[in-house]
Amino acid sequence: MQALFWDGQHLRLDTAYPTPPADETTAVVRVHLAGICATDLQILRGYMGFHGVPGHEFVGEVSAGPAELVGIRVVGEINFACGHCPVCAQGLGRHCPTRQVMGILNADGCFAEYVRVPVANLHPVPASISDEAAVFSEPLAAAFAILEQVRVQPSDDVVVLGDGKLGGLCAQVLHSAGAQICVVGKHPHKLALLHQLGIATVLLSDWRPRLADIVVEATGSTAGLALAIESVRPRGTLVLKSTVVSTHTLSLAPLVINEITVVGSRCGRFPPALQALAHGHVTVAPLIERVYPLAEGLQALAHAARPGTRKILLRMF
Amino acid sequence: MQALFWDGQHLRLDTAYPTPPADETTAVVRVHLAGICATDLQILRGYMGFHGVPGHEFVGEVSAGPAELVGIRVVGEINFACGHCPVCAQGLGRHCPTRQVMGILNADGCFAEYVRVPVANLHPVPASISDEAAVFSEPLAAAFAILEQVRVQPSDDVVVLGDGKLGGLCAQVLHSAGAQICVVGKHPHKLALLHQLGIATVLLSDWRPRLADIVVEATGSTAGLALAIESVRPRGTLVLKSTVVSTHTLSLAPLVINEITVVGSRCGRFPPALQALAHGHVTVAPLIERVYPLAEGLQALAHAARPGTRKILLRMF
Repeated sequence: MQALFWDGQHLRLDTAYPTPPADETTAVVRVHLAGICATDLQILRGYMGFHGVPGHEFVGEVSAGPAELVGIRVVGEINFACGHCPVCAQGLGRHCPTRQVMGILNADGCFAEYVRVPVANLHPVPASISDEAAVFSEPLAAAFAILEQVRVQPSDDVVVLGDGKLGGLCAQVLHSAGAQICVVGKHPHKLALLHQLGIATVLLSDWRPRLADIVVEATGSTAGLALAIESVRPRGTLVLKSTVVSTHTLSLAPLVINEITVVGSRCGRFPPALQALAHGHVTVAPLIERVYPLAEGLQALAHAARPGTRKILLRMF
Repeated sequence: MQALFWDGQHLRLDTAYPTPPADETTAVVRVHLAGICATDLQILRGYMGFHGVPGHEFVGEVSAGPAELVGIRVVGEINFACGHCPVCAQGLGRHCPTRQVMGILNADGCFAEYVRVPVANLHPVPASISDEAAVFSEPLAAAFAILEQVRVQPSDDVVVLGDGKLGGLCAQVLHSAGAQICVVGKHPHKLALLHQLGIATVLLSDWRPRLADIVVEATGSTAGLALAIESVRPRGTLVLKSTVVSTHTLSLAPLVINEITVVGSRCGRFPPALQALAHGHVTVAPLIERVYPLAEGLQALAHAARPGTRKILLRMF
């Protein structure tokens, strides 16, 4: 099959990569569309020391595996848990200490024609959700993780720092939860998309930090983190949504002095994301910048790496 | 009056420092005992740029102010709030943006014969609580702040890193809340005191990090913070109890990957502390290392700065 392969130094299109087999507990998914995420770009800079096929956002159709699944259109959670350790027993398979993570840790990802996924990780996609929307299930689930971890009240004054792909989804999720949202970003065209959805936005250059109840840091930059700490009220909550590779040099004293709660937030469960897509509570079509065929995957990743780019998708079939 | 005075460079005993006046909203307290805390030692290294009389842990008797208070034995909360801003209106006077903080920010403290305190900050001390116990109200209230900020369940596996003054109080508060506590420290004699109270302890050199539900960082060191991040389970809670002056260089990625909640925690309300002292739920007598007269305040602070020292008190009257 065709696949993009990262050997730790170079990304190449492999046209004869072995198609993965299915077994009793895994299915093989024929990938329709895959999304390129900031984590994929970090992997190509050495993050996690990953070697293999990157990619973890996908929608496709089960082509091999348990008979009742074959032919079903699916999306899939990316953490492959052992299922029987104490962490898994707590329902926290996403944190299983021996987990594989699709396209990130010890498991090939979905920038390929076929990807192998544990059956337990698959979710059927309702017919009302297009492939172009379903491919957002994974980052949208990550945005919904905020509501799983933090009690967000309708009266809460929430600032989302970052108008990127994840920031935009977080803003929509928090907006549909009834909170008073303001997105701070650098890109007028991205802010305009959110504004059209009824979400207040402001350009970073025009913004003055104020004391929000909840601040979501989705810029992935050290400057963003410092701004986030400055923007949350005493006893407020700061949600860290972006995995930053570099170390930070910062004083944690303001967190203690202002008694701020910092919530690290990564992956979420897929059902709330699929429900929001099925009911149109979240709009993803305007977030797509361009769809490339897999054969042009290298160009697609180069495009995705340009600052200010919206979501780049890869189409396999 | 006699007072210890910090001019930004030197600490000296001033024997003719002006005795503070009372007015409609403040009382003057004749200080019986004052406690020396790590923050005081940091102030003598430049923390907060403070100039004046340090000290914020005290018990004494109202000597001037509203008639109904004169002669009453009191302890006092250390944040002097404006009382009418939006933050104060939320009941968060401890975070009032224009607050003074006794002995820390724009207000003289209690390493003096008399200290001025807003009436609103005073709490009468029940007769059953000795001066030697009541002087612990402020740090004990800070320990109780954890229960105000974090839901601690009896089944929770809690690790307290640090066997210092604050660590010991935090351990006792969490122990009396029914959690399964283990204190990790460097000082066998301090751990022995906690062990006598029925609290599990382990020497740092013998300890292997495990995945606790809640970790309380009370070492105040960068190494302690790194160890704390390593010791908390995925989706667990890390409570930062110590205000560290220096900046940290650390990767926050583990907080996001493991979805850890970090709770900055500083000051608490006094009533739970007074209740615990009155009912003997917390034992403080063994925590006292030595009591110095105010005239020997410089030696007292030098003693308090020695590693491994328990609580040093100053007696004024």
